[in-house]
Amino acid sequence: MTPPLAPSWSVSQWFNAGPDLGLASLRGRPVFLHAFQMLCPGCVQHAVPQSLKVAAAFADTDLAVIGLHTVFEHHGVMGPDALQVFLHENRIGYPVGVDAYRDDDPSTHPLPLTMQAYAMQGTPTLCLIDRRGRLRARHFGLLDDLALGAQIGALLAEPA
Amino acid sequence: MTPPLAPSWSVSQWFNAGPDLGLASLRGRPVFLHAFQMLCPGCVQHAVPQSLKVAAAFADTDLAVIGLHTVFEHHGVMGPDALQVFLHENRIGYPVGVDAYRDDDPSTHPLPLTMQAYAMQGTPTLCLIDRRGRLRARHFGLLDDLALGAQIGALLAEPA
Amino acid sequence: MTPPLAPSWSVSQWFNAGPDLGLASLRGRPVFLHAFQMLCPGCVQHAVPQSLKVAAAFADTDLAVIGLHTVFEHHGVMGPDALQVFLHENRIGYPVGVDAYRDDDPSTHPLPLTMQAYAMQGTPTLCLIDRRGRLRARHFGLLDDLALGAQIGALLAEPA
Amino acid sequence: MTPPLAPSWSVSQWFNAGPDLGLASLRGRPVFLHAFQMLCPGCVQHAVPQSLKVAAAFADTDLAVIGLHTVFEHHGVMGPDALQVFLHENRIGYPVGVDAYRDDDPSTHPLPLTMQAYAMQGTPTLCLIDRRGRLRARHFGLLDDLALGAQIGALLAEPA
Repeated sequence: MTPPLAPSWSVSQWFNAGPDLGLASLRGRPVFLHAFQMLCPGCVQHAVPQSLKVAAAFADTDLAVIGLHTVFEHHGVMGPDALQVFLHENRIGYPVGVDAYRDDDPSTHPLPLTMQAYAMQGTPTLCLIDRRGRLRARHFGLLDDLALGAQIGALLAEPA
Repeated sequence: MTPPLAPSWSVSQWFNAGPDLGLASLRGRPVFLHAFQMLCPGCVQHAVPQSLKVAAAFADTDLAVIGLHTVFEHHGVMGPDALQVFLHENRIGYPVGVDAYRDDDPSTHPLPLTMQAYAMQGTPTLCLIDRRGRLRARHFGLLDDLALGAQIGALLAEPA
Repeated sequence: MTPPLAPSWSVSQWFNAGPDLGLASLRGRPVFLHAFQMLCPGCVQHAVPQSLKVAAAFADTDLAVIGLHTVFEHHGVMGPDALQVFLHENRIGYPVGVDAYRDDDPSTHPLPLTMQAYAMQGTPTLCLIDRRGRLRARHFGLLDDLALGAQIGALLAEPA
Repeated sequence: MTPPLAPSWSVSQWFNAGPDLGLASLRGRPVFLHAFQMLCPGCVQHAVPQSLKVAAAFADTDLAVIGLHTVFEHHGVMGPDALQVFLHENRIGYPVGVDAYRDDDPSTHPLPLTMQAYAMQGTPTLCLIDRRGRLRARHFGLLDDLALGAQIGALLAEPA
């Protein structure tokens, strides 16, 4: 069974990155993509600290750590201005994209586009994409460090 | 040395409580007051979960668990509408007050009034008030469960 | 309801204490008694570290922290010589007694005497004894730091 | 730089395995070897629980999880009879070998042979051996789950 190519990302705004960041620009590197909402307790208490830990632990590898702010509820209080404070307060230095809405209008289309394209069930969700751009894993909820490490280690070990 | 009376609270809005909640109305009960900001990582990752645990562990005692939203920075993204979502998402059921500003204007007076009255240095801050309304402890930062439990247990053991 | 007096201890050997240590000698102080077996995983992984933490957290109070080695199985490999190594390796500095057997013979009387007198169900077991020598709590298994702290804090707050 | 072949093991007695277990019999599989002493607190509180977690997390892979009891001190109270109780109480089901002594005599040669062959500095020590029998990692002390998972995942991903 061949894993499918990971869908491209629809991002209305990047933090900690230029506007051209996208899956295509990361081809050749394994990608750790973590989707979150800044007011989701499981994200803030577990997934975000784990992602920061991943970024530190694999800093000397070519793993790309990318955050995606997939707001599907309470849009009014989780806009880019609030996200910017969140990123600052949590000392998040890796690129974080704001998942885009159809017609840029969450009031009529509350579910963001990348979240839909990846068929995410909620937040937090982790995705692992291999060096060839294929979606190798998608986990909704929390994942143990040992299991996560094993999956990242396997992707890093694959030839480019 | 006699501990000082705890200053009264200046609250512009209560969640999970009626408008008349105040220190005077709690006289006779020990009070666990935890001051936080909803986008402060130490608050969200440690102090808020600990406060929820305190509320559960002492539910069958007369300890009053009270939250105080002492926003002293990034006021624009931590207003009452955002706090309401935060309380809902974190399933916080105990009373939480919004610390008030002089002239109701954080843009000119960014430090809220209760925070000033208690000389708090930042968030999270825990305060313990005894049955007689005296301020018995004020801790800035994180406090170990064992030490916190001991202080609460001692206050509960004091006669009314 | 008046709590019963705590039964006296039957100890064949003390470590970190002279031979005269006993409940009577501790009257006036609250006592944290933790019964354990050195090869019981729940004891070694949780109860012993928690007891060390209790000893450190309440070092400036008059709480007496006492360990009791209540071996009721595998006696051959948990004798005093093995216990001595265990105490050394775990840097346990508070007094630890070896629970005694009837006729000093665990082969015919495997259940030690103090364990029986306190009706302990297994290890780890925590007991709290107040300043007046009364048994106020007996917990089989693990106890949360917050709840344990509250009970110790309450005992410490009681007048001598 | 080519990693060296892992030294063979000198084991006087196996638990949970037949007498013929050895590195040669595991060729083709990655090996997680954890050296411990049953009365070493860091082993019992961290390394042994982590090894049990590794065994469970990778149960559906061909990773071989092997324990090695490398007793270099207090030999009298950490003999095979005590180890057997330890393995039973901790529900350790993977193979565990007793590291052998020169002339079978720890009183004259306290440092066991495999420990010497691997130049281990103490306990706990983790070793990772790849499918080709090469020693790829040796860690003295505790290792984070994320980092450990990554190393195991990488070894598993290598072709046989």
